Amino acid sequence: MNYKNLLGLRDLSAEEIQEILTTAHLMRPVMESPNKKITYLMGKNILTLFYESSTRTRVSFELAAKYLGATTTNVSVATSSVNKGESLIDTVRTLQSMGVDIVIMRHPMTGAPKLLADHIEAKVINAGDGINEHPTQALLDLYTIERHKGRIKDLKVVIAGDILHSRVARSNIWGLTKMGARVVVAGPSTLIPKKIEKMGVEVFQDIKKAVVDADVVMALRMQKERQESGLFPSLREYQHYFGIDEGVLSYAKPEVLLMHPGPVNRGIEITSDIMEGPHSTIEEQVTNGVAIRMALLYLMTRGGDKQ
Amino acid sequence: MNYKNLLGLRDLSAEEIQEILTTAHLMRPVMESPNKKITYLMGKNILTLFYESSTRTRVSFELAAKYLGATTTNVSVATSSVNKGESLIDTVRTLQSMGVDIVIMRHPMTGAPKLLADHIEAKVINAGDGINEHPTQALLDLYTIERHKGRIKDLKVVIAGDILHSRVARSNIWGLTKMGARVVVAGPSTLIPKKIEKMGVEVFQDIKKAVVDADVVMALRMQKERQESGLFPSLREYQHYFGIDEGVLSYAKPEVLLMHPGPVNRGIEITSDIMEGPHSTIEEQVTNGVAIRMALLYLMTRGGDKQ
Amino acid sequence: MNYKNLLGLRDLSAEEIQEILTTAHLMRPVMESPNKKITYLMGKNILTLFYESSTRTRVSFELAAKYLGATTTNVSVATSSVNKGESLIDTVRTLQSMGVDIVIMRHPMTGAPKLLADHIEAKVINAGDGINEHPTQALLDLYTIERHKGRIKDLKVVIAGDILHSRVARSNIWGLTKMGARVVVAGPSTLIPKKIEKMGVEVFQDIKKAVVDADVVMALRMQKERQESGLFPSLREYQHYFGIDEGVLSYAKPEVLLMHPGPVNRGIEITSDIMEGPHSTIEEQVTNGVAIRMALLYLMTRGGDKQ
Repeated sequence: MNYKNLLGLRDLSAEEIQEILTTAHLMRPVMESPNKKITYLMGKNILTLFYESSTRTRVSFELAAKYLGATTTNVSVATSSVNKGESLIDTVRTLQSMGVDIVIMRHPMTGAPKLLADHIEAKVINAGDGINEHPTQALLDLYTIERHKGRIKDLKVVIAGDILHSRVARSNIWGLTKMGARVVVAGPSTLIPKKIEKMGVEVFQDIKKAVVDADVVMALRMQKERQESGLFPSLREYQHYFGIDEGVLSYAKPEVLLMHPGPVNRGIEITSDIMEGPHSTIEEQVTNGVAIRMALLYLMTRGGDKQ
Repeated sequence: MNYKNLLGLRDLSAEEIQEILTTAHLMRPVMESPNKKITYLMGKNILTLFYESSTRTRVSFELAAKYLGATTTNVSVATSSVNKGESLIDTVRTLQSMGVDIVIMRHPMTGAPKLLADHIEAKVINAGDGINEHPTQALLDLYTIERHKGRIKDLKVVIAGDILHSRVARSNIWGLTKMGARVVVAGPSTLIPKKIEKMGVEVFQDIKKAVVDADVVMALRMQKERQESGLFPSLREYQHYFGIDEGVLSYAKPEVLLMHPGPVNRGIEITSDIMEGPHSTIEEQVTNGVAIRMALLYLMTRGGDKQ
Repeated sequence: MNYKNLLGLRDLSAEEIQEILTTAHLMRPVMESPNKKITYLMGKNILTLFYESSTRTRVSFELAAKYLGATTTNVSVATSSVNKGESLIDTVRTLQSMGVDIVIMRHPMTGAPKLLADHIEAKVINAGDGINEHPTQALLDLYTIERHKGRIKDLKVVIAGDILHSRVARSNIWGLTKMGARVVVAGPSTLIPKKIEKMGVEVFQDIKKAVVDADVVMALRMQKERQESGLFPSLREYQHYFGIDEGVLSYAKPEVLLMHPGPVNRGIEITSDIMEGPHSTIEEQVTNGVAIRMALLYLMTRGGDKQ
């Protein structure tokens, strides 16, 4: 892995991805120990810089950093002086001059973390940029699959929902195909990017057909805000044609994993009972997310000394 | 004490309350030591989850947790993704999956911490729910009384103000009566709950008569927002009929304690000079609040290992 | 130095300023060590209380405190219960009762930190009050000059821009003149305080004449908000008459330092290329700011034990 930054899974090789997953596996026992602390990152400053609010992702990174003994500082746009018209790069350079080692950045614009990484010395982790990538989410999904199935290669993974606007889908497609999975996307035609087959995936518009013999079914979150604009499909239509319930899931393999990046719109993307049923890995994904972020922070810091 | 949660003093026995007060007494020296740190909660994650803003209560819990070596994370609603329509329980389950051990929750709705506690494994402390309870405030009040008087039993305690809308009053009534105090409430009839006598208290509508021979006078905060709606009494009327000044206080015992949960509307509930006078325990209550919260976090964590 | 508070450079002697600069010099290696931690302030609670938002100054203090092993708590006005109409002093007394040792305060009103310091026992550092002083900014500027020039005495320092509304300028004038520098201010006559010569400075309205033989040129930030009210000069006029570019800088000594407190309006106060050129100390000033704040926290805490 390029230890300087993690901008997207598009940039990583299968070997690099595997190294992260294996390291995450070593980190999980730390989370479960009563002490929950190691000191690999003692003295490092981690900045979470969020231009979109996200409690879930911010807290996950914050806890990962703290478990490793690092110091965290949060800057959210609403309360920040970026309002003063200071440029993104100048803001981060300033924080870097104070001793920030790694910047965790979420931004509504595709490419913002890359722009930042090109102009600063601190390391950058993309915590979601526009509709481009959300690499730590995809890594935690890969790790969750590997934990249950022992491998990713040759599994059939179905990603269902609004593929077009989903950075989670995009990162997962990069990661899953690199790791040798067979990836199927399913969703309304208005929400499937044209030419997505070029990314090495198959496309279905019938959820049941898509799910046949699947090892993993990954539902995406429907953005209510986006749907309220009156575009097709409405949430109701989506739920009717693409919502996943026990019936849909019965087309998959008996040991299928049901995944979702959260938060779930209960009863829309998936029903409440399968969300809480034996196939669901939804809460475990959250736990694994902390382990993945610990692994990344560890690898990037360790690697940093070698540069 | 039920080590799983602290939802209200209604649920505690006198023995459990006494255990908390005694533990708080052991915690106070930690606050006064130059180092201000012990490590009982090393590796524990405390989440403050505030659906109403309160610097005072949040910081008190935060410092209590830090004095014990725990890690704290704050989620306030305004900046949180609960806006995304995620349910309260799903939000907290997610945070629990990241390794949160105790959730400190404030919510405008009565019963919200109970609802939460019923659905998660992490421990829950109620930091104020609607007009129901604010148990840590009452515990710190009980502790302050015990520190000065050596006991709570058989003391006459007057609670003055808007009893109807006050979770502080409700928790104090539960706690004081369990500990054997004689509790008198005083306030305008519009602000006294009907049938409050069933809680074991006496009601007065004349503040001077209420205060006669009192060991403790506890004034409540008048919510300006509530009064601005034009209901009786106005703040001015309240101050005239129920405001506590040196004259009112002279009806009480010579060693009376003057308490207030803060922040005080100076000159309305109590005058500035008695607020800063020898009877006032208002600043000490704040200090004791940190000790009480340390005691609770300690007892709940220690107990947690026994479950 | 008066170890109780740091309200402004007006109150400090040259010896006290020198002690702070020398201590900062001892702190810088801590920032550059891999561990970035010492424990001088272990167990101390630092409160940042910001009535104006400023990511840059808040984070700088926060990191300085953390490098020294202290605990930090942030209260910003927007999210604070100061809305409840609680007075400034009551709010801070409450936080002090919880164990806060030092309050770092920014406030839009001149004198607010002084008012606070007069009424509480905790120590107070002024992080900017109205148009009065911003002493830690001036101290970091002095330290930056001393690091490069080996001294401050007899240097010619030009401060250019909106002197009238700048607390940075005011603190620097106090500090630089006490340390024996020759101070020149340059700016539009509408933005120069009347009778500023009484502070021991010379006034120029021609930037090139002001800069002749300067050792240091310090540009101030133009407040866009202020200029948008249609007053003279507009940003465009300012940039035309007072903007600093390579041509202006060529009037100064060859080894001139170009300083700015940031954030820079690129192309207005100074051009992008000299901002990134060899004379610029702008990023180093930020780093030095953390060292200065560490020095202050150390000196005030050490001194506190002697009181």
